Amino acid sequence: MTRQSGILYGLGVGPGDPELITLKAARILNSADVVYAAASTKNSYSLAVSIARPHIPDLTPVKMLQFPMTSDRDKKITAWKKNAGILIEELKRSKIVAFITLGDAMTYSTYGYVLQYIQELAPNVSVISVPGITSYQAASACLNKPLVESEESLLILSGVSGGDCLRKYAVAPDNLVFMKSYRNVKDIVSSLEEYDLVDGSVAIQNCGLPEQEIVDDVQGLKDSPPNYWTLILAKRKKGDVPQET
Amino acid sequence: MTRQSGILYGLGVGPGDPELITLKAARILNSADVVYAAASTKNSYSLAVSIARPHIPDLTPVKMLQFPMTSDRDKKITAWKKNAGILIEELKRSKIVAFITLGDAMTYSTYGYVLQYIQELAPNVSVISVPGITSYQAASACLNKPLVESEESLLILSGVSGGDCLRKYAVAPDNLVFMKSYRNVKDIVSSLEEYDLVDGSVAIQNCGLPEQEIVDDVQGLKDSPPNYWTLILAKRKKGDVPQET
Repeated sequence: MTRQSGILYGLGVGPGDPELITLKAARILNSADVVYAAASTKNSYSLAVSIARPHIPDLTPVKMLQFPMTSDRDKKITAWKKNAGILIEELKRSKIVAFITLGDAMTYSTYGYVLQYIQELAPNVSVISVPGITSYQAASACLNKPLVESEESLLILSGVSGGDCLRKYAVAPDNLVFMKSYRNVKDIVSSLEEYDLVDGSVAIQNCGLPEQEIVDDVQGLKDSPPNYWTLILAKRKKGDVPQET
Repeated sequence: MTRQSGILYGLGVGPGDPELITLKAARILNSADVVYAAASTKNSYSLAVSIARPHIPDLTPVKMLQFPMTSDRDKKITAWKKNAGILIEELKRSKIVAFITLGDAMTYSTYGYVLQYIQELAPNVSVISVPGITSYQAASACLNKPLVESEESLLILSGVSGGDCLRKYAVAPDNLVFMKSYRNVKDIVSSLEEYDLVDGSVAIQNCGLPEQEIVDDVQGLKDSPPNYWTLILAKRKKGDVPQET
């Protein structure tokens, strides 16, 4: 495949607050020929597009790429490849294409997968990725509490599979983020208890949105599981020696 | 202390690229009565202020807060308290104060320390923290390589003390960021070797700046230590079982 004159921009549009988008992403949305977003859940659809909307000229088409919500890896790969193909076709027609994604373009994003298939199927296309503010950065800022400082560590975990992703580390990190703390929140909170991290934990639901809620008693989440947009920030008590389990 | 009508905004202005600042930070810079920045090294001074400069009206004063580059904790605490006091004085005069910091406001930032002293010395002042893009997000975007995906983990470490902050974890994370990989880069690279992470490692110097350099052979850094603005991104090879040491 020869070099195309189109450019694919992968844009992180931030966590929800429409002002937490970068000048760069806003400028690119303003000049793109077409804007794509992932349609995985109703929520992520409306949120990413609604953040980007003020920066997209009225005549620019906004198109959705379908990604099935499934744990079937073959089905996922089929969707990633198919959607990579759709974007490559646009680039072949020399289009400036913006693919928008909630939060950061490189952090647990659908764009990250599609990017890898584009690089495999059409290694010569021009791709420019633009970072965005993550939900955990927004949560930390909203709490006015540093995420990580000095020579501390920060461990970011997907909460999808529960607490085992923390349990495999013998030593607790100084600071911890559990993304997607909803379906397996009971087990996540149990793992925080095992590492003596519960007292330094806070959960945030719908961070940066009007319905935002801060939950200081994360143990209470065991009895009333939160909704989809929940993350937990945990901090080891200052002065503690590293926690050996 | 009674509630002040001033507001302190802690603004992350992003990693260097002047377009990687959020709309929110740009708007606040435009309306602040006074802008403060940390003067710790010549580099951070000129970079944070130069990113913010286009958004600061000509007549708005830009002032520097002195933070000594020292490992003496007492001297640091004295500086944090003194600078917290300077900001509190502005807030008492009902000023809208912006404190700018490179990268993210809550990630290894001087603002994070000052914030804690402000909360201690004047618990009723209004503080709003605004997140910014970190250097490691910018590095990952610049490489077009996801930082973390699916159910993987991401561990962020300060490189200041070398590789021991990695060695204390029995299991290597799926993805790893070593910030400030300069003074102790030999030991950092050794720790990556011990965890079989060298093949999946890349170093980035001066990310997003005109003099940006990507170093694929991180082992070469042992013989020619990089400059201050260097970080290493490491990734475990896909399909590997977790590395037990």
